[in-house]
Amino acid sequence: MSLGNPYKAQNTPPQVVIVGGGCGGIETARALRDTPVQVILLDRVNHYLFQALLYQVAGGMLDAGDIAFPIREVLQKQKNVFVAQAEVTGVDKEKRCVYVSRRKHPVYYDYLILATGAQGSYFGHDEWAKFAPGLKTLRDGISLRSKILRAFERAELQENPESRPELFTFVLVGAGPTGCEMAGALAEMVRHTLKSDFRRFDPGLTRIILVDAAPRVLPSFSPDLSEKACIRLEKMGVEVRLGHAIEEIDAEGVIIGGERIRSLNVLWMAGVKASPAGQWLGVETDRAGRVKVAPDLTVPGYPEIFVVGDTALVIGKDGKPLPGVAQVAMQGGGYAGRTISGRVTGQSPLPPFKYFDKGNLATIGRNYAILESGKLKLAGFMANLVWALIHIYFLLQKEDRFVVFFKWAFNYITQRRSSRIIEEPVMCGNTLDDTKEK
Amino acid sequence: MSLGNPYKAQNTPPQVVIVGGGCGGIETARALRDTPVQVILLDRVNHYLFQALLYQVAGGMLDAGDIAFPIREVLQKQKNVFVAQAEVTGVDKEKRCVYVSRRKHPVYYDYLILATGAQGSYFGHDEWAKFAPGLKTLRDGISLRSKILRAFERAELQENPESRPELFTFVLVGAGPTGCEMAGALAEMVRHTLKSDFRRFDPGLTRIILVDAAPRVLPSFSPDLSEKACIRLEKMGVEVRLGHAIEEIDAEGVIIGGERIRSLNVLWMAGVKASPAGQWLGVETDRAGRVKVAPDLTVPGYPEIFVVGDTALVIGKDGKPLPGVAQVAMQGGGYAGRTISGRVTGQSPLPPFKYFDKGNLATIGRNYAILESGKLKLAGFMANLVWALIHIYFLLQKEDRFVVFFKWAFNYITQRRSSRIIEEPVMCGNTLDDTKEK
Repeated sequence: MSLGNPYKAQNTPPQVVIVGGGCGGIETARALRDTPVQVILLDRVNHYLFQALLYQVAGGMLDAGDIAFPIREVLQKQKNVFVAQAEVTGVDKEKRCVYVSRRKHPVYYDYLILATGAQGSYFGHDEWAKFAPGLKTLRDGISLRSKILRAFERAELQENPESRPELFTFVLVGAGPTGCEMAGALAEMVRHTLKSDFRRFDPGLTRIILVDAAPRVLPSFSPDLSEKACIRLEKMGVEVRLGHAIEEIDAEGVIIGGERIRSLNVLWMAGVKASPAGQWLGVETDRAGRVKVAPDLTVPGYPEIFVVGDTALVIGKDGKPLPGVAQVAMQGGGYAGRTISGRVTGQSPLPPFKYFDKGNLATIGRNYAILESGKLKLAGFMANLVWALIHIYFLLQKEDRFVVFFKWAFNYITQRRSSRIIEEPVMCGNTLDDTKEK
Repeated sequence: MSLGNPYKAQNTPPQVVIVGGGCGGIETARALRDTPVQVILLDRVNHYLFQALLYQVAGGMLDAGDIAFPIREVLQKQKNVFVAQAEVTGVDKEKRCVYVSRRKHPVYYDYLILATGAQGSYFGHDEWAKFAPGLKTLRDGISLRSKILRAFERAELQENPESRPELFTFVLVGAGPTGCEMAGALAEMVRHTLKSDFRRFDPGLTRIILVDAAPRVLPSFSPDLSEKACIRLEKMGVEVRLGHAIEEIDAEGVIIGGERIRSLNVLWMAGVKASPAGQWLGVETDRAGRVKVAPDLTVPGYPEIFVVGDTALVIGKDGKPLPGVAQVAMQGGGYAGRTISGRVTGQSPLPPFKYFDKGNLATIGRNYAILESGKLKLAGFMANLVWALIHIYFLLQKEDRFVVFFKWAFNYITQRRSSRIIEEPVMCGNTLDDTKEK
């Protein structure tokens, strides 16, 4: 293996470089388990993140370590994998190498898989980012938790909390799964968990406003399930405002439908754009930055380069692009791995990639979920049980499954939240800023 | 209650301000449970930290949320307590008020308890701080974990790891409980947990050097137990160097006994000094900054101000100052609370504070501990069981007890570590810096 060496030694196995240790990258590596190749997996962080539960870290139900696992450990037994914590900065398609920050030498590949996922997109308003943090990385989840808990700490310190509604008004932009799940978690937090924690401020005053330009919540579900989820959210006290795009986000709050809403807690649960893999490659992308790949997930003209998951634009059988969900990334990663394996071992090529949609799930608060799989539609407590089982199953490690199950059971029964720690001291935030106090 | 109001309303209960939500502060608040007073507890962070297990967060055995609990939740049921996340900046003994950063108004008190703990002290060499991080706050624990794991990530990325011993040489300064427990945890981590995780770098190469100017490790124990702990550490591969003070710490490593040791991983497990409470008060302190208190833990001349825990200098019956341990803080806090309660309800004063030493415990790795209580001395696996039981008992919340117990059992059986996440991406660190590669 020649990470730092510009020349590949002769008689070494083909070198497969995977960029990204998310669902797509991990599945690619696993599919190459028994293939005589050297896999090099590069990621900026040392952990695989189970993103579907990230909102629970933000909501104080789970700890960072419950939903993140060292990539090194996940692939520990697979001896043909070399894992490196590294920031990729570019790709040279002709020299077949990947550039990495702060390293003299590039990393050479025989096969390259780009599985770098997506990042937050503010629809051309990058200036909104500082007022409305998103929820993509583990750091985001921990920061968002601090932001939410600090808002209540600040409200408690006011002589007259009611006079500062911007402290306890939450605006969630985007009514997709993340936005709806976060809104449900927040609603329960203020109505149950925090109920007895404050002396001056009544957490029940909290306003949670869920905003989307689309005409319904959770548009990936059928309209009747969307409707049920929306009713459930409203029952829990969430104000759902559909059909209006956000016009402005600033230090005071947001403007929507011409109305200004004062809020210091604007959370960006909306649009994502692909990571810069398309720019690295210098190839054609769609407006969201996704790379237009061939039916076998390779980059046209470069059969040794695969793009999988949120970074790839793949057209499904209904003519629409496949959604940016974990299932697509996992299936794509597995397909890319099997394709490489077939080529290395001299088998006939696989048929084009076909996505099998196992269904859709979203949970609203602690005992309601909606589920849609083929013709099956389910809403309510049973769907929530299915949701919980599936998510626990997909946690990669046995121990985490157990801890998460226990914490959920505990949270469910006691209505408490086990993980309500603000890691930073007050000096980093502005909890005590009462200069605006009225 | 008048947090932000400079004038105390008439006919309101006496106001007790507690600064610090550690063992001392929490016990003071609890002792005032049934007393007709208004308690205001101020802390920079929103959590109580179980410091005795902080080294396990640094060592990747536990998560932040396992050993930290929201102060608000701990005191949730005690209705006469108001908790505020606030940074105290000074005290006015004559006006009887506490100044808080970024607030217009001070907080007035009838009784004041300063339980602000200790902070790292570099023996007059503050310039060492940036090379040798300490272990006092939750943030310290998380940062130290990242530093340790990053060192191995960097070693793995070298073409020839053996040529960069400074990457995997750890120097722990201070052979008290924190230093010894951390050394034991590190030794096990490299010999068991990380054994199969790397491809180029052999974690078994790691050097762990424990340094102290004192002639023996764990000087708070009797010499024979110290000796046993030392032998155990050496058996685990820790190099123990006693009787030599650190002469220099810089970007390259340390100098000790005239010898330079190259190390990028110097950890400060040594000296603490009291928090600046003595400066706030403008009263007499010892060299470590501890306030010289009267036998009833009050500040001479100010019977309404109590100082408890690491911030106070209290002389024990053996004529020596009481050590900076949790037991002293808890007993001091309870005593201060009961004294105030007695005064408010008009009872006769308590006898002077007397510390009852329940004993001393330290653990070395996963199945060895030493224990000393009165004439009882124990070393080995049984002492480790006692250690585990006592620490689980003192975790404040039922759920955390269960999770910690489960994680310990899991770590013990599998020799894995459940919490090996580096929260920040590589860009914040310098994992990939190979410019010095040889």
